[in-house]
Amino acid sequence: VVLPFPTPFQIGGGVDLPALRSNIERWNHTGVNGYVALGSTGERVHLEERECLEVLEATREAVPRNMVFIAGAGQASTIGTIREVRNFAEAGADAVLVITPHFYRSAMTQMSLVDYYRAVADASPVPVLLYSMPPLTGISLAAETVARLAEHRNIIGIKDSSADIVNLAETIRLVPREFAVLTGNGPSLYVALCSGAAGAILAAGCVAPRLAVTIYRAAQGGDHHRALECQRKFTPLAQAVTVRHGIGGLKAALDMAGYQGGFVRAPLQPAGEETRFDLARLLEESSIFEDESPGTEERQLTGVSSG
Amino acid sequence: VVLPFPTPFQIGGGVDLPALRSNIERWNHTGVNGYVALGSTGERVHLEERECLEVLEATREAVPRNMVFIAGAGQASTIGTIREVRNFAEAGADAVLVITPHFYRSAMTQMSLVDYYRAVADASPVPVLLYSMPPLTGISLAAETVARLAEHRNIIGIKDSSADIVNLAETIRLVPREFAVLTGNGPSLYVALCSGAAGAILAAGCVAPRLAVTIYRAAQGGDHHRALECQRKFTPLAQAVTVRHGIGGLKAALDMAGYQGGFVRAPLQPAGEETRFDLARLLEESSIFEDESPGTEERQLTGVSSG
Amino acid sequence: VVLPFPTPFQIGGGVDLPALRSNIERWNHTGVNGYVALGSTGERVHLEERECLEVLEATREAVPRNMVFIAGAGQASTIGTIREVRNFAEAGADAVLVITPHFYRSAMTQMSLVDYYRAVADASPVPVLLYSMPPLTGISLAAETVARLAEHRNIIGIKDSSADIVNLAETIRLVPREFAVLTGNGPSLYVALCSGAAGAILAAGCVAPRLAVTIYRAAQGGDHHRALECQRKFTPLAQAVTVRHGIGGLKAALDMAGYQGGFVRAPLQPAGEETRFDLARLLEESSIFEDESPGTEERQLTGVSSG
Amino acid sequence: VVLPFPTPFQIGGGVDLPALRSNIERWNHTGVNGYVALGSTGERVHLEERECLEVLEATREAVPRNMVFIAGAGQASTIGTIREVRNFAEAGADAVLVITPHFYRSAMTQMSLVDYYRAVADASPVPVLLYSMPPLTGISLAAETVARLAEHRNIIGIKDSSADIVNLAETIRLVPREFAVLTGNGPSLYVALCSGAAGAILAAGCVAPRLAVTIYRAAQGGDHHRALECQRKFTPLAQAVTVRHGIGGLKAALDMAGYQGGFVRAPLQPAGEETRFDLARLLEESSIFEDESPGTEERQLTGVSSG
Repeated sequence: VVLPFPTPFQIGGGVDLPALRSNIERWNHTGVNGYVALGSTGERVHLEERECLEVLEATREAVPRNMVFIAGAGQASTIGTIREVRNFAEAGADAVLVITPHFYRSAMTQMSLVDYYRAVADASPVPVLLYSMPPLTGISLAAETVARLAEHRNIIGIKDSSADIVNLAETIRLVPREFAVLTGNGPSLYVALCSGAAGAILAAGCVAPRLAVTIYRAAQGGDHHRALECQRKFTPLAQAVTVRHGIGGLKAALDMAGYQGGFVRAPLQPAGEETRFDLARLLEESSIFEDESPGTEERQLTGVSSG
Repeated sequence: VVLPFPTPFQIGGGVDLPALRSNIERWNHTGVNGYVALGSTGERVHLEERECLEVLEATREAVPRNMVFIAGAGQASTIGTIREVRNFAEAGADAVLVITPHFYRSAMTQMSLVDYYRAVADASPVPVLLYSMPPLTGISLAAETVARLAEHRNIIGIKDSSADIVNLAETIRLVPREFAVLTGNGPSLYVALCSGAAGAILAAGCVAPRLAVTIYRAAQGGDHHRALECQRKFTPLAQAVTVRHGIGGLKAALDMAGYQGGFVRAPLQPAGEETRFDLARLLEESSIFEDESPGTEERQLTGVSSG
Repeated sequence: VVLPFPTPFQIGGGVDLPALRSNIERWNHTGVNGYVALGSTGERVHLEERECLEVLEATREAVPRNMVFIAGAGQASTIGTIREVRNFAEAGADAVLVITPHFYRSAMTQMSLVDYYRAVADASPVPVLLYSMPPLTGISLAAETVARLAEHRNIIGIKDSSADIVNLAETIRLVPREFAVLTGNGPSLYVALCSGAAGAILAAGCVAPRLAVTIYRAAQGGDHHRALECQRKFTPLAQAVTVRHGIGGLKAALDMAGYQGGFVRAPLQPAGEETRFDLARLLEESSIFEDESPGTEERQLTGVSSG
Repeated sequence: VVLPFPTPFQIGGGVDLPALRSNIERWNHTGVNGYVALGSTGERVHLEERECLEVLEATREAVPRNMVFIAGAGQASTIGTIREVRNFAEAGADAVLVITPHFYRSAMTQMSLVDYYRAVADASPVPVLLYSMPPLTGISLAAETVARLAEHRNIIGIKDSSADIVNLAETIRLVPREFAVLTGNGPSLYVALCSGAAGAILAAGCVAPRLAVTIYRAAQGGDHHRALECQRKFTPLAQAVTVRHGIGGLKAALDMAGYQGGFVRAPLQPAGEETRFDLARLLEESSIFEDESPGTEERQLTGVSSG
């Protein structure tokens, strides 16, 4: 379980690096295996290049060497992406998670995606993870495309954030065993693991890391009953902090759960009162407070009232 | 595992009742639990009322009393559906599987679907199964809607043919234990069972009943390794005889597998040469021939050459 | 301008034939050129075969011989549609408007639609109009497909109810001059006529026949200023009685405009209070009351209060 | 008629500024009214900031003061867009055309779009044009949203690139007369003008500027017959150089028509042989060669053979 964390902003708009470091230090003790900085949850598209490098350097310092540190990347042009992955590798990332190009959506055939990833992987000093995120990009990497790219020695896995479990299972069937197929879709975490996924990169995991880790360990250990039971708690929360309330919702939920979510950058909007109540209820129902540490009920109330 | 079988037509266009009976008698020995006649795979919309009743009566005779016999139903109007389910119950069906009305799609709110199913269930002499089939109808029954309808004492379950495993899992979470949530989507059979589905109504099961039953029994028995392995064989076949090649493809595959698929009714088209070769390859890969009986390889070649 | 009128039902559910006749007699004096009975607005899918024939016979009596009388038709199977068009021709229809088959949507290739319409047109005793209605069916007739079918001597035109004006213009460009390309989309009536459409079959025309006829005559006569001005009044009303409020809305609007809309059949729902107020406002804004006859303001109030 | 021209790249990948200037000088004599540099056709997303400024400065020099010079703009964040429009204004643009933010698509409510454009318009030293481009962004500006934004004194118009003529007409109905509603959709140019559009910003106009200008002038002058006739020539060409063959196709067509299209940047792909033949045929059919200058037939052959 890897956490693609959001980037906390100060009220004036700058990146809040101390908040970022503090969050990571707390997640380090939850059993997760690593981090993605500057993923789609990390509002990379809202940051200047200089800010991106600051986030990566701060993350590098806060992440222990025995955990994995991945940087989200991907510009519209092949050349822009190559420049970026080189910079991000130099800033200390162990690997890069490269989103499919998507601005000229109808031109992005599976063939041109193969060419794109090969060019990026050839030039990247660190290993590349593919990133298929159809809800944001309108583009899916077909199972056959992933299988072709899995042959490249510098492409080591994929984060598939769609809920299309059949395509995920087909991808797993077609790639070599050592190629890491990771789901990015919280509500289907358990069934993805049933289907053979190696792990997950989950935004909802930032709010409920112990719950996500429990599902993972139960499924891998063959305790399907417990995995399913935990998934039923995780699903409503995951839907709330991704699809329903977006990044503003995720940051508010982090505040309530004792992390420092911070502000979003416009045009994203902060969570409203109604969203905060919905989130507070879901956090309570998924027993996050009890699971993680004492004193959280107090924090919850603070989180709601200061919203 | 319940089989929603196709209706075999003679070359002139009439229903081939002997072929229908012969198929059922063969399926009776495969371990399946029952049948749906006149489902969406059964081309009910291509049959006259009189023909529907003939199919139901022939099925009633061929299905043993210890297996379940469900009739597909559903007209555009509430009153038409009520008339139909009464006729079908009288013809011997144990239950009816009622598809969501869909002609005036944008008017079919979840609220009007609740009213519809309640009126039908009130009037039906036999229990009602809901049928959510978005690929054909463009309409989904939301988990909350199913939960409300599950309170009706004459509504006993749902066939959900979407591949939306998250909605299926959410439905299972919301309904009472005795309400039967059945998947109608072959490629997600195993993960549906992981998520708590009670069973399945699968067109692809007509071609590979033993394989479908094996997945079901392995998953229910906790042998996840075997279930996943069999699912990987079942998925490509299921995609071929539903999404990719449609009913013409399913009937051709039945012919190859030793059943009597028969003709489709226009405007559906029979399977072409290319489709038949694709199907022959898939049947072989999924080891249907070996699994079921001797001498099928011979039949396969006949099936292909007479295509 | 041809009116595809709704079928008024009595409160018990039977067809209200006197209401139907009375509406037609009123429309006969508005300048429209003819009628479609049992179109998608006519709830044909909610009628039994016997009721269909009663509607057609009543319509035949009420429509003067110098106006055109078209029957909506189309079953799921080719053979069912042929049987139906023969019955409807015998009941007096001058032509049939045959909707694309759509239940097995993904199987309805342009090629199978060509086969379907050729078989129907070969067998039909009266001329056939194609009917492309993607909002209900999910299926479009491509311009090239229409051009191929236009070669059949018994296929005389098309009703295209999509808002895709570019495809409509392309269709007009490809078919012979005498092939009637009619729009079925009220909001794009004026631009369809600009693009060369021969006329229109418009549900919204039932509520505002004089306004629709005025747009038609102004556009054909080269008075683009007046046509555009009237279109701006017609658009909001057309959107309300089709997309936004559906057939229940159309029937309520007819009641308010002095016609007899009558009841819908379930699962369709009658217009609620809010819908009625919206419609009353739109009818007033489009000056229907003033245009058509004295005393309508009184009727409007009655219509609303008795809703 | 305003031309949103593509950015020609050299084979090595740098911007070919002499080619860009040469194209503009040629278009200056075709009757068009101005230019958009760095629009979605201009591959702005493939350029570095420094390259963007070079393109704008070169364009500023080549565009006469009596023609309009607009810069395409729009980053994912409000603050990024503000920084960009300030830079682009300083580089000489008369106005900016700001695409809807779209990366976090589901969060882009009409309300957040209103906030976004107001903030940008408040900060922009030059007037702002809205840019609704649903085929690329998945986001539409509703007519009501445009009407609200039209109240801002620094927002002077919209480029609407959808083919939704009804929404365009509704927008025109709701905004003040002096607010410029421009279509960005070539195939519906004529009907957009019929509906009251003030003009057009058309990529296809780069290839066939005289034809686009002729449609515009004929429609404005009331010669609907000529406008429709020219539109029928323009439509197939416009569909080819936008939807069907994309920017690679547009650049190839420019080469054939005597301009300097140049290379695209990966992951976009250059036009293949088949595309070039399709384009050559369409250019000939739309009589571009004859219309524009002598000697073009020769160039066409060169263009094709050197493809």
